[in-house]
Amino acid sequence: MKTGVCYYPEHWPQARWAEDAAHMQRIGLSHVRIGEFAWSRLEDANGQLTFDWLKEAIDVLHAHDLKVVLGTPTATPPRWMVDKYPDMLALDEHLQLRDFGSRRHYCFSHDGYLAECKRIVTHLAEAFGEHPAIVAWQTDNEYGCHETSISYSPHAHTAFRQWCAQKYTTIDALNSAWGNVFWSMEYDHFEHIGLPVGTVTESNPAHRLDYWRFSTDQICKFNKAQVDIIRQHAPGRDVLHNFMGNFVEFDHHLVSKDLDIATWDNYPLGFLTRDNQSVDDQQRYLRTGHPDGSAFHHDLYRGCCNGRWWIMEQQPGPVNWAPYNPSPLAGMVRLWGWEAFAHGAEVMSYFRWRQAPFAQEQTHTGLLLSNGDEDVAAHEIAQLNKELQLLSLDDKTLNVSADVAIVFSYEGIAVQDIQKPGGATFSALGFCQTLYSACRELGLDVDIVSPEAALDRYKLVLLCNSTIDDPSMAHKLEQCAASKTAPIIVLFPGTASRTCDYAIPDNLPPGHLQTLIDIRVVRSESLPPDHMSLASDELGQDCACSQWREQIVSTIEPRMHFTDGWGFHYSSNKVHYINALPMKIDLIELMEEIAEEASLRPHHLGSDLRTRKIGPYRLAFNFGNEPVDLFEALGSAFRLTPDTDLLVGNSQLNPAGVAVWLVE
Amino acid sequence: MKTGVCYYPEHWPQARWAEDAAHMQRIGLSHVRIGEFAWSRLEDANGQLTFDWLKEAIDVLHAHDLKVVLGTPTATPPRWMVDKYPDMLALDEHLQLRDFGSRRHYCFSHDGYLAECKRIVTHLAEAFGEHPAIVAWQTDNEYGCHETSISYSPHAHTAFRQWCAQKYTTIDALNSAWGNVFWSMEYDHFEHIGLPVGTVTESNPAHRLDYWRFSTDQICKFNKAQVDIIRQHAPGRDVLHNFMGNFVEFDHHLVSKDLDIATWDNYPLGFLTRDNQSVDDQQRYLRTGHPDGSAFHHDLYRGCCNGRWWIMEQQPGPVNWAPYNPSPLAGMVRLWGWEAFAHGAEVMSYFRWRQAPFAQEQTHTGLLLSNGDEDVAAHEIAQLNKELQLLSLDDKTLNVSADVAIVFSYEGIAVQDIQKPGGATFSALGFCQTLYSACRELGLDVDIVSPEAALDRYKLVLLCNSTIDDPSMAHKLEQCAASKTAPIIVLFPGTASRTCDYAIPDNLPPGHLQTLIDIRVVRSESLPPDHMSLASDELGQDCACSQWREQIVSTIEPRMHFTDGWGFHYSSNKVHYINALPMKIDLIELMEEIAEEASLRPHHLGSDLRTRKIGPYRLAFNFGNEPVDLFEALGSAFRLTPDTDLLVGNSQLNPAGVAVWLVE
Amino acid sequence: MKTGVCYYPEHWPQARWAEDAAHMQRIGLSHVRIGEFAWSRLEDANGQLTFDWLKEAIDVLHAHDLKVVLGTPTATPPRWMVDKYPDMLALDEHLQLRDFGSRRHYCFSHDGYLAECKRIVTHLAEAFGEHPAIVAWQTDNEYGCHETSISYSPHAHTAFRQWCAQKYTTIDALNSAWGNVFWSMEYDHFEHIGLPVGTVTESNPAHRLDYWRFSTDQICKFNKAQVDIIRQHAPGRDVLHNFMGNFVEFDHHLVSKDLDIATWDNYPLGFLTRDNQSVDDQQRYLRTGHPDGSAFHHDLYRGCCNGRWWIMEQQPGPVNWAPYNPSPLAGMVRLWGWEAFAHGAEVMSYFRWRQAPFAQEQTHTGLLLSNGDEDVAAHEIAQLNKELQLLSLDDKTLNVSADVAIVFSYEGIAVQDIQKPGGATFSALGFCQTLYSACRELGLDVDIVSPEAALDRYKLVLLCNSTIDDPSMAHKLEQCAASKTAPIIVLFPGTASRTCDYAIPDNLPPGHLQTLIDIRVVRSESLPPDHMSLASDELGQDCACSQWREQIVSTIEPRMHFTDGWGFHYSSNKVHYINALPMKIDLIELMEEIAEEASLRPHHLGSDLRTRKIGPYRLAFNFGNEPVDLFEALGSAFRLTPDTDLLVGNSQLNPAGVAVWLVE
Repeated sequence: MKTGVCYYPEHWPQARWAEDAAHMQRIGLSHVRIGEFAWSRLEDANGQLTFDWLKEAIDVLHAHDLKVVLGTPTATPPRWMVDKYPDMLALDEHLQLRDFGSRRHYCFSHDGYLAECKRIVTHLAEAFGEHPAIVAWQTDNEYGCHETSISYSPHAHTAFRQWCAQKYTTIDALNSAWGNVFWSMEYDHFEHIGLPVGTVTESNPAHRLDYWRFSTDQICKFNKAQVDIIRQHAPGRDVLHNFMGNFVEFDHHLVSKDLDIATWDNYPLGFLTRDNQSVDDQQRYLRTGHPDGSAFHHDLYRGCCNGRWWIMEQQPGPVNWAPYNPSPLAGMVRLWGWEAFAHGAEVMSYFRWRQAPFAQEQTHTGLLLSNGDEDVAAHEIAQLNKELQLLSLDDKTLNVSADVAIVFSYEGIAVQDIQKPGGATFSALGFCQTLYSACRELGLDVDIVSPEAALDRYKLVLLCNSTIDDPSMAHKLEQCAASKTAPIIVLFPGTASRTCDYAIPDNLPPGHLQTLIDIRVVRSESLPPDHMSLASDELGQDCACSQWREQIVSTIEPRMHFTDGWGFHYSSNKVHYINALPMKIDLIELMEEIAEEASLRPHHLGSDLRTRKIGPYRLAFNFGNEPVDLFEALGSAFRLTPDTDLLVGNSQLNPAGVAVWLVE
Repeated sequence: MKTGVCYYPEHWPQARWAEDAAHMQRIGLSHVRIGEFAWSRLEDANGQLTFDWLKEAIDVLHAHDLKVVLGTPTATPPRWMVDKYPDMLALDEHLQLRDFGSRRHYCFSHDGYLAECKRIVTHLAEAFGEHPAIVAWQTDNEYGCHETSISYSPHAHTAFRQWCAQKYTTIDALNSAWGNVFWSMEYDHFEHIGLPVGTVTESNPAHRLDYWRFSTDQICKFNKAQVDIIRQHAPGRDVLHNFMGNFVEFDHHLVSKDLDIATWDNYPLGFLTRDNQSVDDQQRYLRTGHPDGSAFHHDLYRGCCNGRWWIMEQQPGPVNWAPYNPSPLAGMVRLWGWEAFAHGAEVMSYFRWRQAPFAQEQTHTGLLLSNGDEDVAAHEIAQLNKELQLLSLDDKTLNVSADVAIVFSYEGIAVQDIQKPGGATFSALGFCQTLYSACRELGLDVDIVSPEAALDRYKLVLLCNSTIDDPSMAHKLEQCAASKTAPIIVLFPGTASRTCDYAIPDNLPPGHLQTLIDIRVVRSESLPPDHMSLASDELGQDCACSQWREQIVSTIEPRMHFTDGWGFHYSSNKVHYINALPMKIDLIELMEEIAEEASLRPHHLGSDLRTRKIGPYRLAFNFGNEPVDLFEALGSAFRLTPDTDLLVGNSQLNPAGVAVWLVE
Repeated sequence: MKTGVCYYPEHWPQARWAEDAAHMQRIGLSHVRIGEFAWSRLEDANGQLTFDWLKEAIDVLHAHDLKVVLGTPTATPPRWMVDKYPDMLALDEHLQLRDFGSRRHYCFSHDGYLAECKRIVTHLAEAFGEHPAIVAWQTDNEYGCHETSISYSPHAHTAFRQWCAQKYTTIDALNSAWGNVFWSMEYDHFEHIGLPVGTVTESNPAHRLDYWRFSTDQICKFNKAQVDIIRQHAPGRDVLHNFMGNFVEFDHHLVSKDLDIATWDNYPLGFLTRDNQSVDDQQRYLRTGHPDGSAFHHDLYRGCCNGRWWIMEQQPGPVNWAPYNPSPLAGMVRLWGWEAFAHGAEVMSYFRWRQAPFAQEQTHTGLLLSNGDEDVAAHEIAQLNKELQLLSLDDKTLNVSADVAIVFSYEGIAVQDIQKPGGATFSALGFCQTLYSACRELGLDVDIVSPEAALDRYKLVLLCNSTIDDPSMAHKLEQCAASKTAPIIVLFPGTASRTCDYAIPDNLPPGHLQTLIDIRVVRSESLPPDHMSLASDELGQDCACSQWREQIVSTIEPRMHFTDGWGFHYSSNKVHYINALPMKIDLIELMEEIAEEASLRPHHLGSDLRTRKIGPYRLAFNFGNEPVDLFEALGSAFRLTPDTDLLVGNSQLNPAGVAVWLVE
């Protein structure tokens, strides 16, 4: 794994650049991302291009053996662009203008702006496409950040009508697909189609789902336009984009199809205080981030571009944008680096080189303080780079694949977010992360894969948000199940519960998957988060569930019953249907039982310890506040004995500690 | 009591209709409501009417001996209507458009749309007015749903100015009535009158109250236009409208004056999780609904049309629209049916026949699953219908009147909602429901009556939201008090505290009622909900109050004093003034004492058990999670002894259990 | 100290005026404010002036020896004004119109409205400038109330562009000052400058700070236009404005420069339930207000106009506008009066004479009930006035200055509100009030002074929101520190942490103050409010901090260390740097230690008791619910012994009790 950094030469005097480059080299960095917000310095209102400074900056970095990732500047169109196209701005769900004055002030559906983007990218690609320092190009920056995936501008509205016309051909087909007869919502022609916002009450969920799909398609189109130009002028260079964390507002699998590498921006502490609803987690992991927060995304984005993934922006200290911005525990910057390695990252790049003393992000720390002195992260990264060299690795050859697959469907999550089957506080993404966490607490390595991925090589396949009843998924699972090395397949509530037109399948959920397991969901209920439903069997084992239960009709005898008689947990022929959401502690027990059935060797690690295998190495990480005795904690399950030679770390694993040992 | 169902033939193949009708008949249903959302299938943009399918559907139902309630489709104008009248849409309080794409997308003040409604209703009434299957017509659907009672469109604004001109004749009269001299808010002419929203701070409460009254008048006008047409063409048929629960956004007593039957839509579990602020109640009654939730509305709507009332839509299983949508406890569908009977419903109609697999309400259950199989409710309703037959009833002859009246003033609640005398979290409707609940926990039957109702036949009259100081109410109460059989009259805080112009009466509250009891309210205070004020007397009895206290000047010695010296509970000559809000447990004690004074026989039932008398029958209902021994719980207070023959149920009353016995 | 009242003759029949005036005189009032909302009665749409009634009202008051404060009516332009200038209305941050129908419906940047204000003020000043009854003029009413300090109207936008052009001369200078290179936000010319709202994400903090400064400047300009006219026509009269409580939305020190007297509107109970976040405080001080709530503002506004200050509006009973509006504990109206005296008020004026029975504030109590009877406050004020006479005072000669100064920077608070260094729930004003409260609980008298104030006469100087790194402040502090009688200077987190352009100083915080103490802040973190960080020293003393910590590099050995090694509390040469926010109980301990170092005599008073010295008198106040034995509570620290003759009150100080004794 290489390390890199995000750098903004346009913020600093040119005289400083060489010193910065030398300093980067000194602490072992090899990659530098630049340029992605610099449009106002690259072009003026008259179309006058000023690329000299950028060339100079790239050359200086090159002179210090640094590899450059050049970002296209399309996330920050200059002010003069908005003069030229006042209607390029997006509208929010209240149809309010999203104005100039920060970033991402554009609507994906504005053709004029798209043309401008193609023009500037062409200029840049022509100028720098074959520059020897440049190893990769980043398109735009964080698609969708600040809720920009979806715009309700007149341009988007028009494009959506065209998109519908193309998809449905006739308006009757659309009316029928959406069920518009309900409440007399039928359209007479495609020009009648409205936006799915601003309605008196909830708009049609089918309407919303199509608008979500349309929005993904607009991002794909916008992204591909840039990718095509870059590929033309920058042969052999990777094209990538930097995705975000806890973010499902468009289908990343679809956008990734046009990329070489999926990268993402990882802010463990910011995510914790902004997104984690658990007060306990917020207190416990305030300075470390949630033990599964980064790893979940590492595994998710590894599944986007055939295994190739980077971290493009990594938190080095307090950030500026979360409700609370604590300082990481000493050692965590190093730990996060090792963790990324363990999950197969090619590059770990930090955001940012030097704290900017001005503008919106002035309290976002960097590797250097705003006065140019080194901050803590610089030291920890230097240490990380030295330690990595001890392993003399060639990353591309290291096997990171797991035995457990979680099938991850962005569309399926969108369906559950549009109408929440687990009630107002339910999060489809949240449950998927809980399920992932349960596996990880059992020491299991996990792949998070797209609905299109092959599943036959896994021992255990989990479907927790495959909401769409897709015949091809049914076919694939049937084939898996029929094979000699059939995996254990586990279906969670809501699987195949909606057709692609957002309707309940004719044969009830789980639709086509009824061929896999004899299950019909005859009722679904949502429950307040503090309401607990207890299922138990005759041996006294029980399982506490919350939020969401389904009532099942089946010839299969359920393993447990709820107190009101509803069955729980149906399984037959290596297929399980889990018709309620177990609370985490009981979900771990359930997954342990199923993992054993899948011939895996689950082992309880507790809340704070995590381990991952990559190639011949196994690593362990301590996210807790107390030291851990590794031998005690891991037992014999992970090939660690008192005789094992630890390549990194000690068997007494301190908070923020990392250990590495050979297992092959 | 008859049972019925809401049916949408336009959602299903015509071939299915006869099977559905036969099935309805089989489970004992007699009434079917249809048509109320079908405008797009009844008329196209060219005015082409397509009534054939509707006639066919009605005929099919008729052929199976089912009685039809035909809904006018005006709650869902088709898309082409909005092309014709783009300005027919309402604006919300932020002056944002409430657009097409769901339902109720119209402003009551748009004359063009009103004309269209009269036209389609005329067509329907001409076509089906004398159809032998049709026993009743429903106007529109759920006036006011999704906050549509009040619109701030330019059409509404203009109509309001005209309404004001008609009411006040001169602008000086309006300025004086509203107190516009305060803050120089005086208008020079009626065109100056603004909307009571969008102001820098709170707008004038008198302005808001008049806008509320105007909005009620617009609904009355809209509704009456349809009623008049129906009456002309559909002789002998009842005209009704389906009102809602926990809903006071317009004056239902006024709208009801033009109807034959008040019906309402009852969703006990949806109301609980959406509207009930008590965490304890939400947990305790999650699967039963609050024990007084349905009954309160039954008694309220019974008071709207001279005792004639139905439930038009009744929850059969999980609904789709509440924050959490649990499944009812087994038996509750049956219980809710018996409960409606006990309060005098003529018809109990379920929503909906079959779960729609598409569009907004696809997770709203019905009597059938979306695949056509029977769901739980169908069985419970079949059982209910069988049991009802045992009683061989003619509903119209059964006496349901009670000895206790709660006077319910929609206008009085509006006054308290506009400026909340009990503080930010105070709910005038909520306190009325608590008072009702206190009476019901004491086993008392209650009528909830309009301010215009005669009160002289009651033993106990409660005024808890008669905020307006209405001389005619004062006169009526004086006459009551002067009669030989004078009821006990109880006034709660805020009674007669505002003139009809939203001002404090010249002689202080309770205004004209000071002739009834010598009370002057010299101060009113609101308190945080967790702040408790304790009143006590010299014998050590006490009463904990919260939210709202009034300070009284009176020649009457109060029964108790608060710790700071304020008096509490004034009574003289069978009139009580309760100048604070007791907490529920103490309110029950207080009402017990007063009920005894009124020669009623209050008996503590506890939280979960309820009983009601109708005609010669008394019924008991268990809303709790534990079985109840009826003899123990009811003692001798309700003519139940071990020798009593229970017509329905057992003396060991299980959760969701119902018992019926004769008391006359 | 004199007492006064706010009176609205235009609300009452002229026949009543003389009776009211006589009544005011009878209870000892000497000042009456009138006129500030009466524009619609002073002028009609044709410019016809009607001043007769106002002259008559003033004459009647004069005839009863009452001194008049005449308010300009510009906070409530009449409806016809909005016809004349429809664009005079402000827009809120969502660019929504803030419409006519309440008050303060104008944008400070509308030149047409400004001209109208100058015209009406000229007419009034010409008519009444030399009226012998009038002793003072109030400009407008509560600038900024209802979030009106800042408008985003097109007029404001244009004026802001001009303001920027004047400040920066060139657009490059502005781009550079704001750091607009970040995210390509650079402008090409001043017409490009947008509003700092409606952006996709956070707008540039430098942009927001300048918009805040601009808004203050617009208020100054609006106010000064009136002041200049009044001074011209009303020689010798004081000009004042009534500011508000817990309000920092513009720079009051700047507006005050044009006034003779700073007055403020004090609603202790309203502020408590509206603004105080502590549930404990809300419960404990529900009927008394927070013990430091009024005093803080008294001391703050005393620092605005060279020590001259009044209370213009004082709460007499329940108000109408807070979430909960309780009745004050009996005696509190009198206590608040004595408290104002103790802090040096010239006049304590109550709001309002008589409760208005109509319009928005009809539940706001007064000295009279709405029916004209006396309410409680009238009695308590009469008592206060009698007691005040016992002291035979000439207020102007009484020394109220303190030994402790808190430097209060409105601009510094704005900086911290724009980007919150203590996290989402952090309040810069709140911390300042906690610090003040800590001093007051130690029995210390405090001056709250402007950043321009001389500091050399204090023994202890506290800087808790001097966020801007102002060289002149640094110079002043250096001179203080160099003097023989150097005060102890205490710097809290964030001091001098931003340049005047909202950037981090080149040499890191505390910028220029590094010459005062050798400190560099290398990291700042924000923490959830329930997260506690414990610092301790080797002797076992500790200090619990929350919300905000800074990491320090210094040659100075910190007095304590946090568990993660960060230092806490640096001091050298009588300068302290407190680099985290201690929780209140530990802040009191810390301030005690520092106060002792400053040769003050801190003494723990506990939560509820307060004391203040003025001239030769010392006063004590009991805000608690239990009586206090003054000798026990105060010990010998405040010259109170069993032999001391109490001029007012008893040594057993009851709740709401006041004691006064001589100490010189």
